[in-house]
Amino acid sequence: MKFTVSSADLLRALSTAGGAVPSKSTLPILESVLFERDGDALQIAATDLEISIVQRVAVSFEQNGTDEKQRIAVPARRLLDTLRALPDLPVTVATDGEFNVELTTDQGRYKMVGYDGGDYPALPALDDAKVVTADAALVKRAIDKTGFAASKDALRPAMMGVLFQIRPDKSTVVATDGHRLVKLMLDGLTAEEPIDVIVPEKALSLAGKAAGDGEATIRVAQGYVGFDFGDTQVIGRLIEEQYPNYEAVIPVENEKRLTVGREAMLAAVRRVALYSSSMTHQIRLALESDALVVSAEDIERASEAKERVLGDYDADPMEIGFNSQYLQEVLANVDGEDTVFEFSSPNRAGVVSPADPADGEELLMLIMPVMLNTYA
Amino acid sequence: MKFTVSSADLLRALSTAGGAVPSKSTLPILESVLFERDGDALQIAATDLEISIVQRVAVSFEQNGTDEKQRIAVPARRLLDTLRALPDLPVTVATDGEFNVELTTDQGRYKMVGYDGGDYPALPALDDAKVVTADAALVKRAIDKTGFAASKDALRPAMMGVLFQIRPDKSTVVATDGHRLVKLMLDGLTAEEPIDVIVPEKALSLAGKAAGDGEATIRVAQGYVGFDFGDTQVIGRLIEEQYPNYEAVIPVENEKRLTVGREAMLAAVRRVALYSSSMTHQIRLALESDALVVSAEDIERASEAKERVLGDYDADPMEIGFNSQYLQEVLANVDGEDTVFEFSSPNRAGVVSPADPADGEELLMLIMPVMLNTYA
Repeated sequence: MKFTVSSADLLRALSTAGGAVPSKSTLPILESVLFERDGDALQIAATDLEISIVQRVAVSFEQNGTDEKQRIAVPARRLLDTLRALPDLPVTVATDGEFNVELTTDQGRYKMVGYDGGDYPALPALDDAKVVTADAALVKRAIDKTGFAASKDALRPAMMGVLFQIRPDKSTVVATDGHRLVKLMLDGLTAEEPIDVIVPEKALSLAGKAAGDGEATIRVAQGYVGFDFGDTQVIGRLIEEQYPNYEAVIPVENEKRLTVGREAMLAAVRRVALYSSSMTHQIRLALESDALVVSAEDIERASEAKERVLGDYDADPMEIGFNSQYLQEVLANVDGEDTVFEFSSPNRAGVVSPADPADGEELLMLIMPVMLNTYA
Repeated sequence: MKFTVSSADLLRALSTAGGAVPSKSTLPILESVLFERDGDALQIAATDLEISIVQRVAVSFEQNGTDEKQRIAVPARRLLDTLRALPDLPVTVATDGEFNVELTTDQGRYKMVGYDGGDYPALPALDDAKVVTADAALVKRAIDKTGFAASKDALRPAMMGVLFQIRPDKSTVVATDGHRLVKLMLDGLTAEEPIDVIVPEKALSLAGKAAGDGEATIRVAQGYVGFDFGDTQVIGRLIEEQYPNYEAVIPVENEKRLTVGREAMLAAVRRVALYSSSMTHQIRLALESDALVVSAEDIERASEAKERVLGDYDADPMEIGFNSQYLQEVLANVDGEDTVFEFSSPNRAGVVSPADPADGEELLMLIMPVMLNTYA
């Protein structure tokens, strides 16, 4: 294999594929990327056996003797470091029958040894897939708005992923770790036949980074999902578990409504949280007529803080406690200028949504309260 | 003590003083900063018992009862975090007889508990000091150009500092770790009586960050040095050891001169170094007629790289080996567009200097070669 390419183009392609390269693997070949000729393009593939990324980049191929390999695995880290240290200039990459890889520029030559591409693990095929097409920006939005709420707890594997329920008229995307929940409904993401899949958060996060403009294609087959964004494909193994019945935990009769400026409340929570207990991170919201008082105490360090945020509230006064980190994440991810909180009682979940939802979607977050200790 | 100050001003002052606050100390009071009234200014002091920083900031004091403390130690991290999370607005800080500290803004109140300022360690007095005044930018330059070459090896305490030899006509500032050496001579830094001190690199690095415009005053007394930059003073304990005889190692008859573009050579060394052995970091310079060939091999990973950099060289061809990390640091710190290397033989130190030295100074670096293994 021999080709010439702009070093900046190759760096960009390799950086994307590199997202799936494990930093340390018991299988050394996984620390490389697979170079493969695909017509006039170079196809760069990487996998950690859970997530795979395939990236195409246009290069100029030329003949390179008879013994040349058309598939070779190239050390990813060293190639990335070399390309990062180069200015943008044409680089010629040549491989030989011994899996040597040589980069040549105007000024220098860099040699490393790769592996036989035939030894690189095969990527999932995604044959006979169910196919969904949608705007790439919409897919990215579904990913970006939900991923933060997925669980990191390996004991609850289903909740380590994000649930996609794609229907003929709309789709519902859900993530929860039991403490908070996000439910996003999108009119623009549909499928004729219903699709229900749980996609690991890490695969989604890489897909979100790869999403560009234009159209996205989602393929589901044989326990895998593939996200296709033009020249980039991200493939993840599905989580084949039963997702919890999330609808059952969303309260429907929360009648105490607070409308508050999102940025102002987030900033207040962020400051007051500095004074909360480093064990519980507990923060207290006191709902008063037309205001919200955010407070926290840390007995151990004898510290406390209190801020008043103006808001629109006219139900009975109430105090409710939350984990300040979860509350900050919810406020950071719910959209828009004003945020609506709906409460019923201090021991029931609060429902959070944007006051002005975006067109064609419905975004709802839920946050579980914590018991307030009322020594103060 | 009670005062009002812009949160941004207080944050800036506290960030500077915070450089001396240890992140974790067996003496908890050291994790605070000492607030002390000094006329119309607040003086903020911090120390880790080796390095102290005193920072003044203008505030508006007001009366605060009769039992008020004029010296109180305030938890540094929590105060910094709070100020960072605030927009720029007036903050009122009030302390009481119980060492409580309360911050108040328009929107909120934040309380923490400090310590009796009387328990805070006393800072070095620097009485009857030898005094040197100089341009602050010049002092910063002396620090910035030399610190990288100081040793990190606690077994050679003298070399963990930077030697300042201040004389009536000029000063010489030297740092070395035995592998490389920097010698900077400055016309603008003088003292009537000779001063010879070794200043710990960490104190210098904090002083370098604190240096602003205007005049700097250096005070040396009782085993300490103080760097005064207007509102900021950095005090370090001197290293009271014998500095090695550095003049003896600087070769005077290196007759093979190479002049080369600094950026071009640094970039080439940076790239080729990626292919050097991760054990030895060895890089090879081959001096040829009007060029320099930079190369490296790593047998273990069967990789190698070679680049050619144009330069001005007309002595006998020679090969010499260096630690690529040291060579990169020297090239990154020696000034100017073109760099002059002076060599004699592959087993003697190379001398590196800028082709066009800055006015009023002389900058010389020295780098020890490594033995080349010549299997290639």
